[in-house]
Amino acid sequence: MKVNNINYRTVWMKDGEVFLIEQNLLPFEFKIYKSENYIQTCNAIINMTVRGAGAIGAAAGYAMAQAARESKKNNYESFLKEARFHIEHTRPTARNLFYAVEKVYNAALISVNNAFKEAEKIADKDAFDSEKIGEYGNRLISQKMNILTHCNAGWLAFVNYGTALSPIYKAHHEGKQITVYVDETRPRSQGARLTAWELNNENIPHKIIPDNAGAYLMSLGKIDMVIVGADRIAINGDVANKIGTLEKAIAAKTFNIPFYVAAPTSTIEFSCLSGDEINIEYRSCDEIKFQSGPDKNGNIHKIQVTSPGSDCLNPSFDITPAKFITGIITENGIINANKKDIESLKNN
Amino acid sequence: MKVNNINYRTVWMKDGEVFLIEQNLLPFEFKIYKSENYIQTCNAIINMTVRGAGAIGAAAGYAMAQAARESKKNNYESFLKEARFHIEHTRPTARNLFYAVEKVYNAALISVNNAFKEAEKIADKDAFDSEKIGEYGNRLISQKMNILTHCNAGWLAFVNYGTALSPIYKAHHEGKQITVYVDETRPRSQGARLTAWELNNENIPHKIIPDNAGAYLMSLGKIDMVIVGADRIAINGDVANKIGTLEKAIAAKTFNIPFYVAAPTSTIEFSCLSGDEINIEYRSCDEIKFQSGPDKNGNIHKIQVTSPGSDCLNPSFDITPAKFITGIITENGIINANKKDIESLKNN
Repeated sequence: MKVNNINYRTVWMKDGEVFLIEQNLLPFEFKIYKSENYIQTCNAIINMTVRGAGAIGAAAGYAMAQAARESKKNNYESFLKEARFHIEHTRPTARNLFYAVEKVYNAALISVNNAFKEAEKIADKDAFDSEKIGEYGNRLISQKMNILTHCNAGWLAFVNYGTALSPIYKAHHEGKQITVYVDETRPRSQGARLTAWELNNENIPHKIIPDNAGAYLMSLGKIDMVIVGADRIAINGDVANKIGTLEKAIAAKTFNIPFYVAAPTSTIEFSCLSGDEINIEYRSCDEIKFQSGPDKNGNIHKIQVTSPGSDCLNPSFDITPAKFITGIITENGIINANKKDIESLKNN
Repeated sequence: MKVNNINYRTVWMKDGEVFLIEQNLLPFEFKIYKSENYIQTCNAIINMTVRGAGAIGAAAGYAMAQAARESKKNNYESFLKEARFHIEHTRPTARNLFYAVEKVYNAALISVNNAFKEAEKIADKDAFDSEKIGEYGNRLISQKMNILTHCNAGWLAFVNYGTALSPIYKAHHEGKQITVYVDETRPRSQGARLTAWELNNENIPHKIIPDNAGAYLMSLGKIDMVIVGADRIAINGDVANKIGTLEKAIAAKTFNIPFYVAAPTSTIEFSCLSGDEINIEYRSCDEIKFQSGPDKNGNIHKIQVTSPGSDCLNPSFDITPAKFITGIITENGIINANKKDIESLKNN
């Protein structure tokens, strides 16, 4: 997608070097990080230079390919194994990471060249799937529409296009008149920082709103549709996603507004029977207590924004029961959030 | 209520001087502002040293009494009139302000002493009504309860006790085990800054949560009751209150959790037929874009927290339809949010 009118992916490889958009600096600075070896790529995953399931998966695949190139002939396999262990321990929860590392590792057992091809294939597949989600999702979007989204399920979280934002990009490129209401998404503000930045670069009309404002705008008839991403989908259609998703889903149901989840089929956990089985991560309260950003001179400060004597509670995700979800937009089509439809995707 | 174990009101008068808790500095600094004349008190209302309907009303009444004292005998009435005009133009929307100014103005026409008595009566009545709200609301609270509240409807917004927090204070003082979940309440974060500060001073267990987390905690059974304040109540029971109130009311209904509004009878607009008639204020987007607070060295910075190229939308209040409200806690008892019950309060 575009930044300053030039097309980028979040992560790409050229001549054995991995290039990453420095996501830690966004939205206040746009910079490309160049990683010359697999250890540097690992560190970029660890320090969240790259974030988002799809983007991390692609970066991890590239890291594995870099490791294959760096290994000496006399201890090729043991070096590969060690590198694989290292890459797999950069982030504990990203499923795409393990999938990508395994694929490229196996390819590397044949040849270095083969590892590079496999890593490229993984990144391309991620971008291709996102684009397909955009095509299917676009069918739900009329010529003029106000769409609400939560958090960042845009191209920054994947290799290109994204999931929740992909249909919006598609619709916009076709000339549809879209206005996007962007939930700030406290405490980490991925909506206000990343989604807004993405939409601005693509010149798509949008407004950042406090997380408190969604239901009210719905009650006024100002929202025609909600599209969000997903972290995990259970086989009964329950969806784990960024905290606040449930509030929007309940409000959308109350005001009869379609509520869609956009996610690649790989997000579905076929062994997970319902949302009850999904563990929700509680993150550090510092995410609520402190905020960072530039002052008017561009100097970054970390400030306290809550009463100093008070503690917080910071559940990072929530579970939206299937009954609140109008449909799930995947690269294989739009399905209902129920067991029958979800199981039909099992062999894709 | 207590600050560092000493009891305070938000605003009080002694020897013709008005004392105000410097609310602009909270929660990072506790300081009392002393106003020596009515102009200084007006400025304190304008610059929001004092905020909240009840507290503003009391301060305005005191300002009118100060003006009576400051006026010379030869132009007593014209000075009073001028002062009244000045005080009434400090904040445009606070109903309590106009009520208090009128009362004290009329009292001042009799004597300066009479004006002082009337101003004191207004402040005492505000504190008394809040305490009654606490007594009635406390009847709804069992021995052990988790209560969610939104924004700040505590004693800082009134003269003492507050509205939504008053039942919580009462219950806590009786030894009930209360835990309060405090919505951060973006964009101005009155929950995280003021409500949390109040509860901390009273040693009431509480946790600040992102506005996104309420519905999820409800879905887990962690919230037993919601109590919020109100800015205006229509005669059909619709309630205008801080943006985000509607989201919590809808979520509470979905999970069968009692949702109460606590407000003095003066909040009811008997001429307002429904929420549709209430104009909602849209405030500056800077409230969303920028946040202020101290760094670890105590230096205050104003930082940007949203993507710089993006615009925002900032509705400050929303309308919660009566059907989502379990009851309204007033100083005259707990009523249902319907026309019959609300009209029964008309002559109180």
